[in-house]
Amino acid sequence: MRGLYLEDGELRLRTDIASPEPGPDEVLIGVDRAGICGTDLEMVRGYKGGFCGVLGHEFVGRVEWASDPAQVGRRVTASINVGCNQCAVCRRDGPEHCARRTVIGILGRDGVFADQVVIPAFNLHRIPDNVPDEHAVFAEPLAAALRIREQVAVRPDQRAAVVGPGRLGMLAARVLSLGGTRVTVIGRRSESLALAGTWRLHSDLTGEAGNSSFDLVVEATGDPAGFAEAIRLVRPRGTLVLKSTYAAATRPDAGRPSRPFDLTEIVVAEIRVVGSRCGPFAPALRLLEDRVIDLDALIDGEYPLSEGLAAFNHAARPGIRKILLRPS
Amino acid sequence: MRGLYLEDGELRLRTDIASPEPGPDEVLIGVDRAGICGTDLEMVRGYKGGFCGVLGHEFVGRVEWASDPAQVGRRVTASINVGCNQCAVCRRDGPEHCARRTVIGILGRDGVFADQVVIPAFNLHRIPDNVPDEHAVFAEPLAAALRIREQVAVRPDQRAAVVGPGRLGMLAARVLSLGGTRVTVIGRRSESLALAGTWRLHSDLTGEAGNSSFDLVVEATGDPAGFAEAIRLVRPRGTLVLKSTYAAATRPDAGRPSRPFDLTEIVVAEIRVVGSRCGPFAPALRLLEDRVIDLDALIDGEYPLSEGLAAFNHAARPGIRKILLRPS
Repeated sequence: MRGLYLEDGELRLRTDIASPEPGPDEVLIGVDRAGICGTDLEMVRGYKGGFCGVLGHEFVGRVEWASDPAQVGRRVTASINVGCNQCAVCRRDGPEHCARRTVIGILGRDGVFADQVVIPAFNLHRIPDNVPDEHAVFAEPLAAALRIREQVAVRPDQRAAVVGPGRLGMLAARVLSLGGTRVTVIGRRSESLALAGTWRLHSDLTGEAGNSSFDLVVEATGDPAGFAEAIRLVRPRGTLVLKSTYAAATRPDAGRPSRPFDLTEIVVAEIRVVGSRCGPFAPALRLLEDRVIDLDALIDGEYPLSEGLAAFNHAARPGIRKILLRPS
Repeated sequence: MRGLYLEDGELRLRTDIASPEPGPDEVLIGVDRAGICGTDLEMVRGYKGGFCGVLGHEFVGRVEWASDPAQVGRRVTASINVGCNQCAVCRRDGPEHCARRTVIGILGRDGVFADQVVIPAFNLHRIPDNVPDEHAVFAEPLAAALRIREQVAVRPDQRAAVVGPGRLGMLAARVLSLGGTRVTVIGRRSESLALAGTWRLHSDLTGEAGNSSFDLVVEATGDPAGFAEAIRLVRPRGTLVLKSTYAAATRPDAGRPSRPFDLTEIVVAEIRVVGSRCGPFAPALRLLEDRVIDLDALIDGEYPLSEGLAAFNHAARPGIRKILLRPS
């Protein structure tokens, strides 16, 4: 089969990949649509340096084979973390932080930028009938945006800002605004803030809003420079949610990304910093079913899998939000 | 009068300081005991580079003059932040984060390493009669330790660690253990962990405890290296309380301390980082009155003010916890 394959830091379109064989409790899925996200781009730039395999984790597809024949033909997506389901972490918190986890298209497990993928049945989520494929691929990033609401009690009267008007930032802003909160989107270029206006969110250029103006700031730039702006914007005793992971500024001694960061400012202003990663799929699918988020506005292009490398180049351009892949 | 005066990064014993004049709503206090803390040492090393004046903020003294004669003769200490009491921050949160605040012996206001000091009556706290002067000086650091309990709901069955067995770290560990929590103190040298045993706390050498062993980790080393150990010890989705401010690694462009810090680790493990500074005096004084903390074990020496520079040298030695100053 075909697949976008990352090896030794190089992404290639391979056509000679063997069709994956479902293991115990796994199903075989034919991929109908997939979305390129910031993590995919960072991985091509070197984040998670060791990964070798098919990239991609945002998708919708149809079950082509399952040990339970009733599942065949179902339209599904999947949560991306596959835990051991045995350890204390899995039993208490679920698979997201299992030390032995694999992650679809990110860690130890092939992803969805291919004709087919195998995924544990445990991870599958059925797509509601009224959700088109183009929207269903947003289940994963929308779940990641909803994770913020699981972690932080956001009062409707609080002032919230999202730094970074990209794919994930706009979803986070919209999810916060659906709680009744006034949300300001912060970006470096006025063109990138146009969608905030369309979605009736407030917006400001980077550096424009006053110091300490916000109770809650979400950092979703995917760029280390966004962090300084986020710290500047959050009020003393406020909350700063970190969504970005970076390939940049890799520490040579640790093989892991890092960047200079003012710890003293966190202490003096008593800021609460909350790392935030994967979120819950079921509520994300409910929001997709409710059609309260204008997802079409996030889609900047769609490519057949055979033009996957061109799709990646498009997705990496500044201001581009979501690029989709389809089989042909 | 005499005072330990910081100017252009140099600490001197001056004997020519004019006696301070109480302003409106201020009282004049004769200092009976004062304590040297980590922040004082960091300020001599360059933290808060711009401060010029008498250092010191941990103290007990007697009111020598007040507009209300009933206050004269009272034994008092004081909370250290002096806000404008007018702005929205002061009205909602108190003076700790007022943008126009002064801080006794730290920011825009002379401190207590002197014969006398003037302090707003609003900030004073009366010392219970059964609390000796040597213990009363711990009201401020004990309040800072109690601040952790205001910010984080610590369940008694959680595993807690304090990295840094110094002055503040030991108080934080004891305060957490008084909530029924099992507390492990982490330090680099076995000698510095002896007090943990005396206080019936657990202890481990740096690097010894397993990765991700603790639900809650308090970083109180005062040393940037402690942060990496704290990140290593906290479990995914755990809480990391930051207590240290540093003079080291000052960023040349901002005139503020900073250090390399792995933001990606915070995101991937969904760690909650809580900056923690000043705390509540009233409960600290109740704990002092209850005599449940063996404070004598924290005191490593006492010097007359005339030997204040020697006292600072002693306080800066590794493993030394609290050095006190007295008038003569």
